[in-house]
Amino acid sequence: MDPDGVAKAFVDHYYTTFDTNRAALVGLYQEGSMLTFEGSKFMGAAAITGKLTSLPFAACKHQVTTIDCQPSGPAGGMLVFVSGALQVGEGEHPLKFSQMFHLMPVGPGNFYVQNDMFRLNYG
Amino acid sequence: MDPDGVAKAFVDHYYTTFDTNRAALVGLYQEGSMLTFEGSKFMGAAAITGKLTSLPFAACKHQVTTIDCQPSGPAGGMLVFVSGALQVGEGEHPLKFSQMFHLMPVGPGNFYVQNDMFRLNYG
Repeated sequence: MDPDGVAKAFVDHYYTTFDTNRAALVGLYQEGSMLTFEGSKFMGAAAITGKLTSLPFAACKHQVTTIDCQPSGPAGGMLVFVSGALQVGEGEHPLKFSQMFHLMPVGPGNFYVQNDMFRLNYG
Repeated sequence: MDPDGVAKAFVDHYYTTFDTNRAALVGLYQEGSMLTFEGSKFMGAAAITGKLTSLPFAACKHQVTTIDCQPSGPAGGMLVFVSGALQVGEGEHPLKFSQMFHLMPVGPGNFYVQNDMFRLNYG
C-alpha cells in the first residue's frame, strides 16, 4: 500500500476505535509512546489510554477533514497530520481539532504510535 | 536548552524569518526536506523555498498560539506542533493555521527541517 493509503487506513482505524471502544486504543501504543493532549504530557500505553478513556465525555464522533503524510526518516516511520471535527454529545457544536501522529513500523504494513499530539482549534 | 526551549527558539526564528525575509528560509531546509503545504508536496530546500516565496501575498505576520514538542526517536530529532494565526494583509481577518515540523540535528543545538506540514484551519 502506498504511504497515503497507509495513512488513511491508520486514521480510519484510529478514530473508529476511539469512537466505538476507546480502551482498545492501548494496542496502538507502546511503552515509549508519547501523547501531548492539549498541552498535557503522557508516556506509555497505559498512561495514554488512561488519559483518553477518562476524557469527560462518554460518546464522541470524529469527522476527518484532511490527512497529510510524509516519511519521517530512514527508520521507516511515517508522520500523519490530521485535521477534523469532534462531536462530543448529541446536538453539541462540533469542535475543530488538529492532531499529528508519528507511526513506527513493527512489521510489514504494521505500525504503532510513537508520538501523538492533539490540539483543539479554538475559533 | 531543554526541548521546550529549543522548540520555542526554533518557532520564533522560523516565523520571524518567514515574516521579514522569506527567501532566507532556504537555510533551514536540506535536499531531503519535505513540505506539504495545503496538500501540495515539495521536496528539497530550493523547491520548498520556491513555494514559500511565491505565495500570493507580499507581507504577512504569524502569531503563535500553542507550541508542543516531543523527541521523535533515537536519531535525536524533535517534533514541533504549532497552532496560530496568519495575517496576510492590512486589515484582513487572520487565518488560523496548524503546522508541524520534524527537526533533525546537524550539530549541538542546531537543527534543520526534515518534515514540514502546513494546513489552514477553515472555520
